[in-house]
Amino acid sequence: MDAVCASALVGNEMPIAADVILGSNVTIFHSDLVNLYGCTIGGDTRIGAFVEIQKNASVGERCKVSSHSFICEGVVIEDEVFIGHGVMFTNDIYPAATTNEGTLKGASDWEVVPTLVKKRASIGSNATILAGLTIGAGALIGAGAVVTHDVPDYAIVAGVPARVIGDVRNNKQ
Amino acid sequence: MDAVCASALVGNEMPIAADVILGSNVTIFHSDLVNLYGCTIGGDTRIGAFVEIQKNASVGERCKVSSHSFICEGVVIEDEVFIGHGVMFTNDIYPAATTNEGTLKGASDWEVVPTLVKKRASIGSNATILAGLTIGAGALIGAGAVVTHDVPDYAIVAGVPARVIGDVRNNKQ
Amino acid sequence: MDAVCASALVGNEMPIAADVILGSNVTIFHSDLVNLYGCTIGGDTRIGAFVEIQKNASVGERCKVSSHSFICEGVVIEDEVFIGHGVMFTNDIYPAATTNEGTLKGASDWEVVPTLVKKRASIGSNATILAGLTIGAGALIGAGAVVTHDVPDYAIVAGVPARVIGDVRNNKQ
Repeated sequence: MDAVCASALVGNEMPIAADVILGSNVTIFHSDLVNLYGCTIGGDTRIGAFVEIQKNASVGERCKVSSHSFICEGVVIEDEVFIGHGVMFTNDIYPAATTNEGTLKGASDWEVVPTLVKKRASIGSNATILAGLTIGAGALIGAGAVVTHDVPDYAIVAGVPARVIGDVRNNKQ
Repeated sequence: MDAVCASALVGNEMPIAADVILGSNVTIFHSDLVNLYGCTIGGDTRIGAFVEIQKNASVGERCKVSSHSFICEGVVIEDEVFIGHGVMFTNDIYPAATTNEGTLKGASDWEVVPTLVKKRASIGSNATILAGLTIGAGALIGAGAVVTHDVPDYAIVAGVPARVIGDVRNNKQ
Repeated sequence: MDAVCASALVGNEMPIAADVILGSNVTIFHSDLVNLYGCTIGGDTRIGAFVEIQKNASVGERCKVSSHSFICEGVVIEDEVFIGHGVMFTNDIYPAATTNEGTLKGASDWEVVPTLVKKRASIGSNATILAGLTIGAGALIGAGAVVTHDVPDYAIVAGVPARVIGDVRNNKQ
């Protein structure tokens, strides 16, 4: 039975890799239902179930990363940002499984296109963020939006592609 | 080895919390790959993998909740409803990680905006349902739609934002 | 303790069912965080976390299936295809939880509508693919697109519904 139990333990522990840097008081609601590796998570941040955060991604302090979201390599999220459920970041304009020669792509076969989400921005559920963009401070991305351009500070954007429809300073009390 | 095994057991059992109320004959295909807490699930309902259902959410009888979907607090789903894959409900118009003062938001810092999905409605995969809406009986929400207004009974809606494009009584045999 | 350990083992092992046919050198990054059953996965293909692949689905060789994606029964994916994160396939035009008589739908109560993704196509994150379509060889589906019509070989499509916006032979070096 020893081997069986050891195997079960590994299976539960691996989804948070040893190289993840967690600030103080980070809450991960189900550590066996996330996949975090090589990333940095700031203090007091909360992370839901079914979240993947890749290496060389960084999440600030007092953020909330909701269930089913994916934060890829090259994404920097500042403090107090809200990431809704099912939000997908991207870091590649022309993704592919293989090189033009048909061999598997490795880490050296593409350049990560970085994304920045500034302080107190809020990204609605099921939103998709294309590679290489900056989401402004305090901006609000509507649920289901596909963001294809930079978003100004405090802008409210929605739709596919996302367009500015308001300013949070006029809409939130 | 005892501590190891006990820990493994907790890890597998916790994703269905003790306060979930399950009707008779509910099927949860992978109980270790869901996150259900404080919710009510009606009899004969089937729930796929990677599903999260929050406290104070209610799913009726003979429903199907497909993989990767998220049903949040404040959502009431009546009987015989189909929820596709990757469907995201929301309960907040202006989501945020922190209060305006920069402290973490707690349960008392926001008001849940309720959503009602009426009997035999069907919600397509990757659809997003904004907060505060009613989806009518028998309505069909197209895959990938972002629903921003109430949907009448038996309406077919699609697109971003979702618009009425038909009536299920004319389209289904 | 024996029963406890055995149960933990079952919980970890079941998400890859015994009837899955895996080619040589398939990489599944977290075998305890996927749900694969009755499907065929070609050699050298890589599969991320929180992926579900159903029975009678087929994925070719040297593909990449990214996290949070769902590949349903009736989908055939050829070689060297890239599937982004949160991609949802569908196989039913009028999904429903129950028959018109209100009884649970079983396998015999609907006809699977097949989908084909041809060699070297690339499907962006959070894209939704309606049932019954063919995605052409080398085609690029933009992130967040909802694909409602066949996509020609080498076409770039984006939006909701997805429309042709370019040709990969002109856009990729």
